[in-house]
Amino acid sequence: MKPEQDELKGIEDAAGNGLLHRRLFLQGGAGLLAGAGLMSARHAQAAPLTIPAWMKAPGTHMSPYGQPSSHEQGVQRIVGGTPNVTGSGVSFTPLERLHGTITPNGLHFERHHSGVPQIDPDEHVLVIHGLVNRPLKFTMDALMRYPTVTRIQFLECSGNSGRSNMSPEPPQGPLGTMHGLVSCSEWTGIPLSVLLDEAGVKPGAGWVLAEGADAAAMSRSIPLEKMMDDAIIALYQNGERLRPENGYPMRLFLPGYEGNMSVKWLRRLKVNAEPTMTRDETSHYTDVLVGGKAKILTFPIGVKSVITSPSPGMNLPQPGLYELTGLAWSGAGRISRVEVSADGGATWAEAALNGPVLSKSFTRFRLAWRWNGAPATLVSRAFDETGAGQPTRDAFIAEYGARSNYHNNTIQSWGVSGNGEVTNVYI
Amino acid sequence: MKPEQDELKGIEDAAGNGLLHRRLFLQGGAGLLAGAGLMSARHAQAAPLTIPAWMKAPGTHMSPYGQPSSHEQGVQRIVGGTPNVTGSGVSFTPLERLHGTITPNGLHFERHHSGVPQIDPDEHVLVIHGLVNRPLKFTMDALMRYPTVTRIQFLECSGNSGRSNMSPEPPQGPLGTMHGLVSCSEWTGIPLSVLLDEAGVKPGAGWVLAEGADAAAMSRSIPLEKMMDDAIIALYQNGERLRPENGYPMRLFLPGYEGNMSVKWLRRLKVNAEPTMTRDETSHYTDVLVGGKAKILTFPIGVKSVITSPSPGMNLPQPGLYELTGLAWSGAGRISRVEVSADGGATWAEAALNGPVLSKSFTRFRLAWRWNGAPATLVSRAFDETGAGQPTRDAFIAEYGARSNYHNNTIQSWGVSGNGEVTNVYI
Repeated sequence: MKPEQDELKGIEDAAGNGLLHRRLFLQGGAGLLAGAGLMSARHAQAAPLTIPAWMKAPGTHMSPYGQPSSHEQGVQRIVGGTPNVTGSGVSFTPLERLHGTITPNGLHFERHHSGVPQIDPDEHVLVIHGLVNRPLKFTMDALMRYPTVTRIQFLECSGNSGRSNMSPEPPQGPLGTMHGLVSCSEWTGIPLSVLLDEAGVKPGAGWVLAEGADAAAMSRSIPLEKMMDDAIIALYQNGERLRPENGYPMRLFLPGYEGNMSVKWLRRLKVNAEPTMTRDETSHYTDVLVGGKAKILTFPIGVKSVITSPSPGMNLPQPGLYELTGLAWSGAGRISRVEVSADGGATWAEAALNGPVLSKSFTRFRLAWRWNGAPATLVSRAFDETGAGQPTRDAFIAEYGARSNYHNNTIQSWGVSGNGEVTNVYI
Repeated sequence: MKPEQDELKGIEDAAGNGLLHRRLFLQGGAGLLAGAGLMSARHAQAAPLTIPAWMKAPGTHMSPYGQPSSHEQGVQRIVGGTPNVTGSGVSFTPLERLHGTITPNGLHFERHHSGVPQIDPDEHVLVIHGLVNRPLKFTMDALMRYPTVTRIQFLECSGNSGRSNMSPEPPQGPLGTMHGLVSCSEWTGIPLSVLLDEAGVKPGAGWVLAEGADAAAMSRSIPLEKMMDDAIIALYQNGERLRPENGYPMRLFLPGYEGNMSVKWLRRLKVNAEPTMTRDETSHYTDVLVGGKAKILTFPIGVKSVITSPSPGMNLPQPGLYELTGLAWSGAGRISRVEVSADGGATWAEAALNGPVLSKSFTRFRLAWRWNGAPATLVSRAFDETGAGQPTRDAFIAEYGARSNYHNNTIQSWGVSGNGEVTNVYI
């Protein structure tokens, strides 16, 4: 069926190739979509109701800890390992199967350097030492009494979208396999400033070495200024205690910084004058530039966005109205604006942002799109409150080359073919 | 150890019996607690670090869908059933074991009238009929294309805190068993207004009957005005598709209304002129008053609060500083203020609210308390943006009697004994 133009009277286009004004997704605007007969061709009249089998007998009992429906078992992390290296690798959040902004704990992405240690919280301690007046050692019981803060914030691996976006031909696969090393949770923990103030930081201190209790002893240097600003010792994630793969019984959490610095299974904080130049910040997690120089100690995540639906592997069944939706985030603060194009970047429409728009958090954006059945190219670009935006792929390659692994926040594009197939494309 | 008064110099008391000013929990204030030597008597000096067993060998591999630590298996819903009635009963969220505001999906409270139906989403349909111009029938595939909204909001059973708070002697047990029929999630779904506008509501319509596809065919009448305001068809909870016990593949969600009206496993919406007076809104879910009259069709949840830590069953190991924290919520909108007393209501201090404070959502409150080791009575009372507060237990009983099951939002008190034991008390 071709969409009837009359049904959309009163809803102005906001950009080329069928992008409608975002007010359809703002308070009170959604009703206009109904007037447009959004889906009327795709559902039948209400027939006499039948009684399904599950209404004819009592269902299952209450349960102590619930699990997803058996019909949703395909919604999993996509696990990738390093051959012959036990416990080293990643698992991706299936962003294309989720909606809203919270990532359920079972689906938070993973990046481990030597697997997930199974830590007995009664034996685990956190030590603060180095350039402090009073070295301190905390058991879990002691730490659990400290004052806490709660915030909803994203965590992204610095290697997210890296090579997958840089190969000569655009790689194909579900969105999660390309951009799924990012997740967003409600984190509750203890401000680092409280613990460091209690230890008493000495003059001359400028950095803090954080070390994890995994077999890789993951170690990173963090500026003292960040530790005294919004860093926390995270104890709870989405309401419950951290899970083992997210650092149980405690992890460092550095809002907006590349994920590996939020050291999991945290055991030690050493206050130093200078960065320690650990293996994990020299051989890994440095940004090699064109010409061979490298940026080191690059911490904040740039502003970024992806359209989650439609996205590669999905099919649009027929022309008509669709919800375009996706996620935007920035390590520098709040998202100020997301723009979407349906014509490969020739024209742009501003998307509706789902509030509240929080700092260093996922922001869900949405826009209505009237697909006319012709090939189209969908693109998103986000801006944050500092005014920063996303580079094009070409601009990124000019600076970092095509083999850079880290901090790839280039603009991402999806192609829609005339038969409704969605694929990854470069523009 | 007795707390040293000198260490708390500069931090003024905000109310009697050791309640400190909330600015300790506002931006930049937490450092003052550190100066107070919050925990210094309870941890040792940093000794030479030892290498635990879990750092000596690689840990476990990445996993497709994560689960809590084996050390946290005691954090479960508390399941209560009705003897000899399959699938009828409740399970309680263990509020005292959680922190922040989000309830993980596995721990969301349950109330089922005939168990959890195991629904095949490919066979499930939603019908809208009655006083509409165009009766509609939606498959899941059709519905999944509609525009969505995302909001973080609580859901509370109207029977929460009911009898447990009304018996002559205060019942004892973990907080969850008394007040755990309330949870808070990020819900994503389709505004009902879009679907009803598409069906075309006829003049004279005022109510909508919602029916679930469970064996109890749970049925409630909802004012059309609410359906056109902020009601949604919820499809996602905390990012992932609803779980079976929360209505998979879809549920109605009515922000701020008593939980049973947010009909799970939704199959039918019939637009009517008047309420249907179903079994579930006459024999159940009516509020019997002193004298025998009953209030019916009472929908919004009143303003309410509980202190989650410390709470009954916990023990304060010794005098000193503690974080008092809890949850407040209101079906009428935003929480405007939470006050805490440590002397049984003689004096009150305002608690810090963790932002952003959202409408019809959990709000986490916190306050620092310097316990001097003497018996104390901890009380919280919340106010919402409409100016409403919580009734005392006596005032509630005067209106509803001591056997009322529903809409109990009375002020709740915990006793702390001289040896640090926390119990439920009436004041």
